[in-house]
Amino acid sequence: MATTFNSVDPRTGETGPSYEEASGDDVRAAVAAAAEVHRSAALADRDRRAALLRGAAARLRAAGDEIVTTAQAETGLPEARLRGELERTAGQLEAFAAVVDAGDYVEAIIDTPDPDAKPIPRPDVRRMLVPIGPVAVFGASNFPLAFSTAGGDTASALAAGVPVIVKGHPSHPGTSELVARELAAAVADAGLPAGTFGHLLAASLEVAEALVDAPAVKAVGFTGSYAAGRAIADRTAARPEPIPVYAEMGSVNPIVVTEAALGERGGAIAEGLAASVANFGGQLCTKPGVVFVPYGEAGDGFADDVAKRLEGTEPTVLLNERLRDALREAVARLEQRTERLGGGAEAGGPGYRHQPSAYEADAGDLGTTPELLEEHFGPVVLFVRYGSRDDLLAALDRVEGQLTGTLHAQGGEDVAAIVDALRSRAGRVIFDGFPTGVAVTHGMHHGGPFPATSAPAHTSVGMTAIARWLRPVAYQDAPEALLPPELQAANPLGIWRRVDGELTRDPLPRAG
Amino acid sequence: MATTFNSVDPRTGETGPSYEEASGDDVRAAVAAAAEVHRSAALADRDRRAALLRGAAARLRAAGDEIVTTAQAETGLPEARLRGELERTAGQLEAFAAVVDAGDYVEAIIDTPDPDAKPIPRPDVRRMLVPIGPVAVFGASNFPLAFSTAGGDTASALAAGVPVIVKGHPSHPGTSELVARELAAAVADAGLPAGTFGHLLAASLEVAEALVDAPAVKAVGFTGSYAAGRAIADRTAARPEPIPVYAEMGSVNPIVVTEAALGERGGAIAEGLAASVANFGGQLCTKPGVVFVPYGEAGDGFADDVAKRLEGTEPTVLLNERLRDALREAVARLEQRTERLGGGAEAGGPGYRHQPSAYEADAGDLGTTPELLEEHFGPVVLFVRYGSRDDLLAALDRVEGQLTGTLHAQGGEDVAAIVDALRSRAGRVIFDGFPTGVAVTHGMHHGGPFPATSAPAHTSVGMTAIARWLRPVAYQDAPEALLPPELQAANPLGIWRRVDGELTRDPLPRAG
Repeated sequence: MATTFNSVDPRTGETGPSYEEASGDDVRAAVAAAAEVHRSAALADRDRRAALLRGAAARLRAAGDEIVTTAQAETGLPEARLRGELERTAGQLEAFAAVVDAGDYVEAIIDTPDPDAKPIPRPDVRRMLVPIGPVAVFGASNFPLAFSTAGGDTASALAAGVPVIVKGHPSHPGTSELVARELAAAVADAGLPAGTFGHLLAASLEVAEALVDAPAVKAVGFTGSYAAGRAIADRTAARPEPIPVYAEMGSVNPIVVTEAALGERGGAIAEGLAASVANFGGQLCTKPGVVFVPYGEAGDGFADDVAKRLEGTEPTVLLNERLRDALREAVARLEQRTERLGGGAEAGGPGYRHQPSAYEADAGDLGTTPELLEEHFGPVVLFVRYGSRDDLLAALDRVEGQLTGTLHAQGGEDVAAIVDALRSRAGRVIFDGFPTGVAVTHGMHHGGPFPATSAPAHTSVGMTAIARWLRPVAYQDAPEALLPPELQAANPLGIWRRVDGELTRDPLPRAG
Repeated sequence: MATTFNSVDPRTGETGPSYEEASGDDVRAAVAAAAEVHRSAALADRDRRAALLRGAAARLRAAGDEIVTTAQAETGLPEARLRGELERTAGQLEAFAAVVDAGDYVEAIIDTPDPDAKPIPRPDVRRMLVPIGPVAVFGASNFPLAFSTAGGDTASALAAGVPVIVKGHPSHPGTSELVARELAAAVADAGLPAGTFGHLLAASLEVAEALVDAPAVKAVGFTGSYAAGRAIADRTAARPEPIPVYAEMGSVNPIVVTEAALGERGGAIAEGLAASVANFGGQLCTKPGVVFVPYGEAGDGFADDVAKRLEGTEPTVLLNERLRDALREAVARLEQRTERLGGGAEAGGPGYRHQPSAYEADAGDLGTTPELLEEHFGPVVLFVRYGSRDDLLAALDRVEGQLTGTLHAQGGEDVAAIVDALRSRAGRVIFDGFPTGVAVTHGMHHGGPFPATSAPAHTSVGMTAIARWLRPVAYQDAPEALLPPELQAANPLGIWRRVDGELTRDPLPRAG
């Protein structure tokens, strides 16, 4: 008997359609199919990979109405946000197709031979990155499209040429199934084997555990909570063959505002901050959760302004009951430890809602109550009030690894020490802006030191995300005919290569 | 009371000088000093880092006689090898100084802003790699210079700008102390704080454990046995803050020889193989431990030739008593499971020696006796005899992750499937050569899938080794004055940068 679970509309709490839970056999079949695709080298065909990525983007756009309607009913996120997220998702797939076309993500390095080198002769060495093997991707609850079934992990992995097995998030199973349908069709359209992309739906832990335990799975991509990310990382570290886990586990995304910035543009900062905290229920990995605000009149006014704006915001729908309950519990602890400036601790209405709210504590409290720096996943912000610059820096020093750190200051202020404090603990440092709304660009870094992620050298957004699914191989004194095109003397793909230390797109000089 | 331990001359078994075991206080002091250096950003000065690396190379060369004499007495390795290794070590330090000078190892990526981008405006994003924090490096027993105190891990880490704490290998404490003396002097010469480089000597586990447990240590470099490497990886994975471990844990480095290659140049291959197996006691991570040889007359003749050459080799001195005992035990198991073709199971004489030797098994035995694929760290080789190409491929399929895989074949043979089998499980594929003697070049890859290493995407030899000690940071909409030179519009360092997707050394175009 197959087990089933139901989607739930968080706007009303009403039960939606039922979905069949993947079985152990489903997991084994998906992994075996992915392993066979990897072994067959079917994904070595760059043109087909690019076609798959572009085809998936086109299909997602074409199915946009159906996907967005389903996602609205499963996540409670507004239509405009979901349409934007769908476009972002399609854009990511296309951006990675362009990376495949450009081809230099393989980081080709060629060292020509030198028989006279000391202490030993130097052989011909040609190195490039190759696919690591099948990977497992866990969809996130808060981005049903951009960080889920066909999100950045999947797009970057398919671009890298590794088969992907997605575990769709049980909070939006219908959305995941629709997206998987389109992705599977794009795989077929591109003439690639079905095992290129596997999709498993499950609400229970067993499927996730079986997937990360599967010997053929060689890496894991995850976006979600610290508890779940750490559990996966611990489990894979204990495998007979440990594998890399790229877990993005959230953050409190500290913001520092200076007195001078408040004096110049306190109102604008308050407006931007309130939106960044409350939009989409504040359920973003980069939601600013802790804001360092100076003591004094300007700081008081700013904190009150933000609190009033949050209080004036409609209660926001949260993604599901579990997250709503977890937020309530976390907020109950905040209520005991800090002062509420505005907003409410809960919210009525149908479904799962929360009233955006602001709390306040003293910078010194971070030393005695480190729990204040826990992530509150929802429309909640904590103001940490500081007196002197030293108080601020001492408080920042208590902040663990973060996805982002933000500074609002005025030109001419000496902020080097603050920037340094943010940079030393965050993956991205933002100036006079807000961390939410992560742009998908070549250089975007969506990562950071632990506990923001399990792998500080890697990112889940931006084009360098492809590196997570690759490993280097060096060919030593290989006959030209056995070399992949990326490493052949003529450079038939015209990619950038590092030859004897210098970047060039030229063919190799003829030996001799 | 300080504990002490003694060096031992493995050529004679005689006890040498005594060395003081590092204490818990020593570990704490070294880590605190390194953390302070990291915090101070003293190592951000590229010119000083390059000066340190070049100064260390010059000092090691100048102290070469003393270092080599001491290393001979502690490792039993021949003078010529140690002089070559010293030159390699100095060359590595200088090569990383050149990487620092060139500056583009920071992988600068700049995305210019686009207010009209969809679905959200694109900010100014500038990303580069920055130092990860203090790192711990474990010296290896078998390369007292090139993989030890001032070896590749230390050189690449100092180049990256991270402070290094080395745990010198207790099998060559005097060598380690001399090298540390020169490195510390080079640190002072370059005007850098003493905490840039810490050195701890210890024969016990406690110091190693305290070092990898220290919260301020942010990554570990290790070269040694699987058991020790896995223990470190498991320990760091269980830290409150897990950190990356770059453990290179050895390999059996399979070699495949075809019938055609034996027909053309069997004698030359036998000569090269015997040297690659027996040189320096076969105590190299890349020593070929398993050689796939076809059944038939040519294969028989080849195996006998190699066996006779090994039998005719003087017993080789092993690095220490522990490795000698471990090899004896492993060889005793081989004696039970396979047929000895030549050489001896043990060796007499003073100190710790072993007679180079060859064993033989059938390709099908790898299925029933997977232990045959264990590493035998010493001058021992196992011939695995195969009949058909299918037998060969099936046997290769049983081989786990490797540092290297080698093929000896003739032009015109269809070897694509063999190359693919080697490439899919090894970090380096060598054609018509031998895996020992790893050239230090830009593209060299000394790494490979687990269990060869704990981090298949990284290398411990070659210029990309620097990437292990770095993490990305993205600056979003940063004022020019707060950007590091690598990301400033004018590109004052003249480094290669990826600007809007294209590699260039040009300054940014002026915003219009």
